Amino acid sequence: MAKLVTKITDRDTNFADWYTDVVREADLVSYSSVKGSMIIRPYGYAIWENMVNVLDTEFKKLGHQNVQMPMFIPESLLNVEKDHVNGFAPEVAWVTHGGDTKLEERMCVRPTSEVLFCEHFKNIIHSYRDLPLLYNQWCTIVRWEKTTRPFLRSREILWQEGHTMHRTAEEARSETLRMLKVYEDFQRNYLALPVLVGRKTEKEKFAGAQETYTIEAMMYDGVALQNGTSHYFGDGFAKAFGIEFLDEDNTKKTPFQTSWGCTTRMIGGVIMTHSDNHGLVLPPNIAPIKVRFIPIQCTEEIMNEITHITSDLEGITYDIDQSDKSPGFKFADAEVKGIPIRVEIGLRDLEQNVATLVRRDTLEKIIVPLNEVANKIKELLPKIQQDMYDRALKRRDSMIYETNDYQEFQKIAKEKSGFILTTWCGEEACENQIKDDTGLKSRCIKEEIQDGTCIVCGKKAKYSIYFGRQY
Amino acid sequence: MAKLVTKITDRDTNFADWYTDVVREADLVSYSSVKGSMIIRPYGYAIWENMVNVLDTEFKKLGHQNVQMPMFIPESLLNVEKDHVNGFAPEVAWVTHGGDTKLEERMCVRPTSEVLFCEHFKNIIHSYRDLPLLYNQWCTIVRWEKTTRPFLRSREILWQEGHTMHRTAEEARSETLRMLKVYEDFQRNYLALPVLVGRKTEKEKFAGAQETYTIEAMMYDGVALQNGTSHYFGDGFAKAFGIEFLDEDNTKKTPFQTSWGCTTRMIGGVIMTHSDNHGLVLPPNIAPIKVRFIPIQCTEEIMNEITHITSDLEGITYDIDQSDKSPGFKFADAEVKGIPIRVEIGLRDLEQNVATLVRRDTLEKIIVPLNEVANKIKELLPKIQQDMYDRALKRRDSMIYETNDYQEFQKIAKEKSGFILTTWCGEEACENQIKDDTGLKSRCIKEEIQDGTCIVCGKKAKYSIYFGRQY
Repeated sequence: MAKLVTKITDRDTNFADWYTDVVREADLVSYSSVKGSMIIRPYGYAIWENMVNVLDTEFKKLGHQNVQMPMFIPESLLNVEKDHVNGFAPEVAWVTHGGDTKLEERMCVRPTSEVLFCEHFKNIIHSYRDLPLLYNQWCTIVRWEKTTRPFLRSREILWQEGHTMHRTAEEARSETLRMLKVYEDFQRNYLALPVLVGRKTEKEKFAGAQETYTIEAMMYDGVALQNGTSHYFGDGFAKAFGIEFLDEDNTKKTPFQTSWGCTTRMIGGVIMTHSDNHGLVLPPNIAPIKVRFIPIQCTEEIMNEITHITSDLEGITYDIDQSDKSPGFKFADAEVKGIPIRVEIGLRDLEQNVATLVRRDTLEKIIVPLNEVANKIKELLPKIQQDMYDRALKRRDSMIYETNDYQEFQKIAKEKSGFILTTWCGEEACENQIKDDTGLKSRCIKEEIQDGTCIVCGKKAKYSIYFGRQY
Repeated sequence: MAKLVTKITDRDTNFADWYTDVVREADLVSYSSVKGSMIIRPYGYAIWENMVNVLDTEFKKLGHQNVQMPMFIPESLLNVEKDHVNGFAPEVAWVTHGGDTKLEERMCVRPTSEVLFCEHFKNIIHSYRDLPLLYNQWCTIVRWEKTTRPFLRSREILWQEGHTMHRTAEEARSETLRMLKVYEDFQRNYLALPVLVGRKTEKEKFAGAQETYTIEAMMYDGVALQNGTSHYFGDGFAKAFGIEFLDEDNTKKTPFQTSWGCTTRMIGGVIMTHSDNHGLVLPPNIAPIKVRFIPIQCTEEIMNEITHITSDLEGITYDIDQSDKSPGFKFADAEVKGIPIRVEIGLRDLEQNVATLVRRDTLEKIIVPLNEVANKIKELLPKIQQDMYDRALKRRDSMIYETNDYQEFQKIAKEKSGFILTTWCGEEACENQIKDDTGLKSRCIKEEIQDGTCIVCGKKAKYSIYFGRQY
């Protein structure tokens, strides 16, 4: 047991090393000679597949259809919307040759697909009957990051990007918020992540968007992870691309647009919120394996008992560790992989007609009569899910500070980890001042306010807003 | 109705134009400014999703695990296996810049991922206990084709690639054939495609493989479509990459390898086998929508009746065309999209207590009492599936010619479409001769034979083998 666990750096000693140790020891990723990219191994990919399945089902329920766009964007197409190209051009990978032939026009690997969707929308949107158009795409995007970390910041990112077009601005705005809510619910109910939800400032919004809404999770170390965004574009892209539709009143109009995306980064968020010095801790609702049975001896009697129990676990994914490793090794393996419940059954247990259930989140051992094991598992899984959320919420809330005093703000920023809620006039100069003085960036606007003064300039405040460090 | 249908070129007049017309009119793909790539639209992508779901379930049942490798391959990594790089280097897309910075080493977008898997295998395979290693990846690959056609030949290809490592050559060979059988069964049972299954010649095998097995389908025009391949690599790649494992006898050994893949090209195969001058014809087992209800008038009575019928269609995907288009337009739309059964119900039908079912494959109209519609649908869907297969098989078999006489071979090649089964000595010179004289390439080796002479050189024949033109 010791062997596996000692490979993981202490979480409070060096959080960054702890993170990469967990990611490696839980067999989530591996590295290759492709700098900045990661190999997602079967166990890591199975977590992503679970995320994809839940979200894809939800999107389809709401009427979104999946499509597949090209992965390349010709330079001239990327250039159509100016804010957009300025935001993305510095971090794209350029394809310049096909085989031995130099391309007439270089193309980038998509960093996001707004321009590809817009070009397509121009071809297929003609009438108000074509709206709303609700599209989604699961794919890989590329952003040429200088510093990379598995799941958090990678040159290649697996994600989904929704792109929708609407008849009115109101409808598009409401779609932007509807999809933000889908992300929020998913992260709360499946990933057990308490998240802050709000609007990004002008400075932090997506290149080309009118408004960007964000899901901000707080990691164990108090640092923010932006875990999904939803953008309202207004008609900016549509006008740049000349997209028009004939409305019911027989006049030509420009449609309004949204896009929204979330990525494999969510796996990083799950790890950095819930995991511990023993390794990964997975919320049951997203865990590829929810229960692992560990026969202390692989006798026929014990295997029969396990078969008997599993026959009552309809719909709950489990596995049985029948390897020839020692029990201690098997326990540590179940722990490092974050399997929510492990069930240990040995010959002595059989004699006493019991099994030992171990909760991964608390490491609590629960001795249960054999004929109650299946029911106990069904009772524990949702409880573990809820407890993980509650603990993460409590911890996060204890690391949100609130102040209107700039000296205190700077003191908290220096001494504490976490977010600071404050009041702000809305001017970029004040936002930049905070960044320069403390290193903290705005996370999201909590709400518009009527009273109060800006923490920096002292003028009338417009917003209450969260600040924090970020991944 | 006429409006939609006349957009499709007659299949026997110009098969190539007919194909692109069907693909476009059925809303399967669209084009963009990205030359050589296609946009897969929702209806086309839904067909692919169905294929993915069936195959992915099958792979997992057999023990394969999904992973995700990087999409880029550094040039030096591509160069490790010489046959492989010679086969692929002329047709890869090269990334040379990240943002404004020139890369120290250029990288290609993966045309296939053998070298990436091998590099990873070297890191994770240590002991015989790590074998067999059964991996699969769903992703997009890029091959810089000069001439492209939707689904058939495209610069970007959606596919799966299985990569497995085994302790013995026998086990790897048997995996190669096992996965070939998965493809064969899938194409027969879901796509209603009769396929020839066999080994490729040395000349036609995959770059770096010892043996390549193929699934060869024959299109309506008699031209072959290679619709899936499975490769046995021996230990060639493993040796080039220095992959070794410690066997049970405590000696270091080199493992044996396979890879196998199939692509969105299968959608092209379905279209070119089954579709007709009215548009797409989809086999029920892969159709995104199996039944479309067309209310001739959208009255409450008719809608109630449709609701009543659909409540008995558990698990059968259907939709209802409630648009304000004319019935004729709706019929044509159901036809062009290849929906296996459409159900027409109008007020006069209600009076007579009947509905009209129309089979897409035969366009046969069947009048059925309302209370028997659901059962008739359940009876018809498997029948349509089987009939489509039987018709395709009959047609294909009628276009396979057999001869041992080279003059007759050349005459058939000139005058007929289809495949020619003949006998061959196994020498590349004779295979090349046939290609030069007739334009026909070898499709696959049917079997080894003991008797007979080579159709070209007259020496002892080793194989009976199919020749044909190909997409």
